[in-house]
Amino acid sequence: MELKEYLPVLNDLSEEDRLVLEKSAIRKKLKNRTIIHNGIEDCSGLFIIVNGEVRVYTISDKGKEITIYRLFDRDICLFSATCMLKNIQFDLIIETQCDTDAYFIPADIYKNIMAKSAPLANFTNELISSRFTEVMWLLDQILWKSFDKRLASFLLDESAIEGSEILKITHEEIGNHLGNPREVVTRMLKYFQNEGMVKLHRGLIELIDIKRLKKI
Amino acid sequence: MELKEYLPVLNDLSEEDRLVLEKSAIRKKLKNRTIIHNGIEDCSGLFIIVNGEVRVYTISDKGKEITIYRLFDRDICLFSATCMLKNIQFDLIIETQCDTDAYFIPADIYKNIMAKSAPLANFTNELISSRFTEVMWLLDQILWKSFDKRLASFLLDESAIEGSEILKITHEEIGNHLGNPREVVTRMLKYFQNEGMVKLHRGLIELIDIKRLKKI
Repeated sequence: MELKEYLPVLNDLSEEDRLVLEKSAIRKKLKNRTIIHNGIEDCSGLFIIVNGEVRVYTISDKGKEITIYRLFDRDICLFSATCMLKNIQFDLIIETQCDTDAYFIPADIYKNIMAKSAPLANFTNELISSRFTEVMWLLDQILWKSFDKRLASFLLDESAIEGSEILKITHEEIGNHLGNPREVVTRMLKYFQNEGMVKLHRGLIELIDIKRLKKI
Repeated sequence: MELKEYLPVLNDLSEEDRLVLEKSAIRKKLKNRTIIHNGIEDCSGLFIIVNGEVRVYTISDKGKEITIYRLFDRDICLFSATCMLKNIQFDLIIETQCDTDAYFIPADIYKNIMAKSAPLANFTNELISSRFTEVMWLLDQILWKSFDKRLASFLLDESAIEGSEILKITHEEIGNHLGNPREVVTRMLKYFQNEGMVKLHRGLIELIDIKRLKKI
């Protein structure tokens, strides 16, 4: 598949800009646990996952880690190119979580085109905004965390009731049980899935790590 | 002073776009404690502070507050215009903290120009990035810093903002800024007082030992 399939904004660029970006892109196969980016000084470029998984996390002085978000197939990793964002001043570590196949676009080339291209600048805006939304969500969880507890305990109760670790229930139904909008349920379930506690299938939720759900 | 002084990016726009933005801007005088923006549905527009102060905060289901950041003279408030940012999906409350003089630019007009103007889109990028940086800083504070450090750093920031070592603020208000119950604030302030770093008066906090507060 071509780069365009992963980066549809290319269709909105001028022919010239599109060609420059396409030519600059490098396809890379990265081994599991490769560190793509480490802190503010590092600026490899925009990173587009063809398939694989990447974890973006931060680490305290004392070595404690927290996952900020994870990226999967077709996701675009912006913070491996922080140098192109003037006001970004935070350190993140970006690391593959399995063998990962990806495109790289060098930061300086992307930045030059973004400076003069409204479509590319607006696309970048959308990327930052969606990462920002994930971080705000995380902040909310950390500050007020109660919904994760409620959802985990609901899933465990259901599992006990049904006598099965595979629950046939929609996100909407759970939302109705817990008094939360469906989107909130979906978001938290996806977070649980990212953390390897559940697996989501169409209309089904499989509990994978009962022990951790209980711990929540 | 003209709008251009507060929004230098206007100089980089086409004559036509600049005029449209300038004409759309409305100068407003807002009373203390005016809520400019309340949650995701609200989209008044871009808000540029001529002079005054604005607090951007979030609130839990249980009514607990935490300040995300504060804006002062010449700062630009982007999240009062979240509708123009496609992927922003978080609720914030934006409220004046004193009588505030500001320009408003309607979100739809800004958005239309941003869609076709690379300079305006890139400027917006920088705005989001700097707010993002502030939120990441906050996340860091909450995750890895203990409350004594956060409180000391809040008191020092306040003192710098007010240009005074006597702060007129209640424990409740500090709690709302930092996302902690009033009792926790009071306890820590009393500890600070015992240690001779502050002196507590009715409704006032006097910073006595700036040096030690900084050391915390």
